[in-house]
Amino acid sequence: MKKIPLLLMGCGGVGRKLIHHIVSCRPLHSKQGVRLRVVGVCDSKSMVVASDVFTEELDDECLAKICKAKSNGSSLLSLSSLGACQVVSSQEIARKAIDIAALLGKSTGFALVDCSASDETIAVLSPGVDMGCCVVLANKKPLTSSIEVYDKLVSQPRRIRHESTVGAGLPVIASLSRIISSGDPVYRIIGCLSGTLGYVMSEVEKGKPFSQVVNGAKSLGYTEPDPRDDLSGMDVARKGLILARLLGYRLDMVDIKVESLYPPEMQPDVMSVEDFLVNGLPLLDKDIEDRITKASSNGNVLRYVCLIENSRCEVGIQELPKDSPLGRLRGSDNLLEIYSRCYKEKALVIQGAGAGNDTTAAGVLADILDIQDLFS
Amino acid sequence: MKKIPLLLMGCGGVGRKLIHHIVSCRPLHSKQGVRLRVVGVCDSKSMVVASDVFTEELDDECLAKICKAKSNGSSLLSLSSLGACQVVSSQEIARKAIDIAALLGKSTGFALVDCSASDETIAVLSPGVDMGCCVVLANKKPLTSSIEVYDKLVSQPRRIRHESTVGAGLPVIASLSRIISSGDPVYRIIGCLSGTLGYVMSEVEKGKPFSQVVNGAKSLGYTEPDPRDDLSGMDVARKGLILARLLGYRLDMVDIKVESLYPPEMQPDVMSVEDFLVNGLPLLDKDIEDRITKASSNGNVLRYVCLIENSRCEVGIQELPKDSPLGRLRGSDNLLEIYSRCYKEKALVIQGAGAGNDTTAAGVLADILDIQDLFS
Repeated sequence: MKKIPLLLMGCGGVGRKLIHHIVSCRPLHSKQGVRLRVVGVCDSKSMVVASDVFTEELDDECLAKICKAKSNGSSLLSLSSLGACQVVSSQEIARKAIDIAALLGKSTGFALVDCSASDETIAVLSPGVDMGCCVVLANKKPLTSSIEVYDKLVSQPRRIRHESTVGAGLPVIASLSRIISSGDPVYRIIGCLSGTLGYVMSEVEKGKPFSQVVNGAKSLGYTEPDPRDDLSGMDVARKGLILARLLGYRLDMVDIKVESLYPPEMQPDVMSVEDFLVNGLPLLDKDIEDRITKASSNGNVLRYVCLIENSRCEVGIQELPKDSPLGRLRGSDNLLEIYSRCYKEKALVIQGAGAGNDTTAAGVLADILDIQDLFS
Repeated sequence: MKKIPLLLMGCGGVGRKLIHHIVSCRPLHSKQGVRLRVVGVCDSKSMVVASDVFTEELDDECLAKICKAKSNGSSLLSLSSLGACQVVSSQEIARKAIDIAALLGKSTGFALVDCSASDETIAVLSPGVDMGCCVVLANKKPLTSSIEVYDKLVSQPRRIRHESTVGAGLPVIASLSRIISSGDPVYRIIGCLSGTLGYVMSEVEKGKPFSQVVNGAKSLGYTEPDPRDDLSGMDVARKGLILARLLGYRLDMVDIKVESLYPPEMQPDVMSVEDFLVNGLPLLDKDIEDRITKASSNGNVLRYVCLIENSRCEVGIQELPKDSPLGRLRGSDNLLEIYSRCYKEKALVIQGAGAGNDTTAAGVLADILDIQDLFS
């Protein structure tokens, strides 16, 4: 039985779903001759860790307790009765994680699995790579940090997977990696990478005012608590940077041209959420309406996309042909068109739900299974 | 430098393109620390093989001569001056290949790469698996043979890849394998897996008679020399069987319900190609036209698809909603909708060119690179 010891960083929605999938897939993975050994779980404040990471792991009962505590909003520090497990406090997390990485990285192999949304994990991931650890990320932050951090993380390309950083579990990174390794040069990627903005652009296309659509999306729970977090395009830009870097572009976040769907004078430090929704947004309706009319008169539609081409990455509204894959897209699905030598005139298209804890965690789990040949 | 020794079986269009890609990707793979060592190339009648497979390989000059001979229609037996390489004749191929597999399979690792269209390779692949070889297939025949052969070939699931057996290089098998390994149960696959039939169904939808479309497709080179090889649906059925078996369905070719687009009385043993094109096909126009009209009156369109669901696999014309991914498909692209727990109401969709030597060979090469962690 091949054993994959792992440390899970982050036990929010995705992390807990991952724990659930790991436990419920035990019979399936056992049939495949693989055993995932969760030796530790941490959030930003504390870590639960097996007392001897070589021989012990957090058993399924312990994992269940961790998930229960976290979904109740409790800290892992509240878990006192966990058998032989240690509970480590905030200051010690990184040091302890690095200790385990040093112990297991070069001997049995070790996977650092980052389902957090923090850039603090870089302090563990970066030395972990040097210690021979594998890295599996749902967290976009480490890959969108400085190019030096990026280079370090991907310095052992067979030891890193990060499918769920773009389009959740959609096989975007896996497919692009295959195309790249087969020597088929990708010269253009264009895609809708935000379900929220996809929904918004679809609805305004039907003739609804932008302000009404955004307010509706917020009340349906489709947006972040402050919809400007979606409308700024920064989340799409992070995904774009990850794709661009995968293609070998030497870019940083500041190099990406990002079109925000609201002007600087409506920024969070100037306007409250409430004020933005009630008084700010309606001022933007006319402009969006005009742009849609203009696009339509050219036989085109508007999509909020990420475009990666000619060493550049741009994020914003583009006018696209109605009958292209992106032009035919409706609703909240993510969709990527990938153009390469093999997919020259007609793109390779990948489409599907690009968000959700279940599919994000499934993507992380598939990544972990994908590196199994590196473990003994 | 990690070395992957391989034997290439089949040097038709795909095999030669693969050789081309292997050679032109040497700088890229070298940067990744991988070296593909082609120790032998065979067609159905002969094999060129390095005299000492441990230390030698067919160099790029030798590979170029092989490609040149084969594209000129010459036999590999005509290649006399190939330095230290041996040329082996038909009777000895399988024995020689198995000898090499036995030598390399358990020591350095060895990949049997099947780009042929023959079921004779099973005689090498099947013992090769027992000898610890990896298997990479573009050839559908071995995976659509008896379930016993299938079980043998996939008995070491980490050692087999066969992306290019379905949809050429489209990341269909890789994506499905990821979904399966993450424990996300796939309950339905429906897809257009024939570019030719996709084109035909698109064109008849525009109102052109079926006979005219098929004759046109033939003269454009879109069909097999005898278009009935496409219209029979048997090629789609093979792909369907491969997908169904990947999902764990215990099916054989005979279990697949296949709708042929021509009746038994127009079969090749009854009617010549010429007769079929001129006199047979027009008799089928009315029926297709009626079915399109009927579908259209339901707001639907007709697509020739493969449907895998509820332990069954069916191949034939289905009436599908106009605004579904398959309903919106035009032209010769392949398109698959995959439904699972994560992609429940809205499918995961993969679309793109599903044929062509370049993309098929690129898929094979990506597969070879994907198993690199099994080599030392």
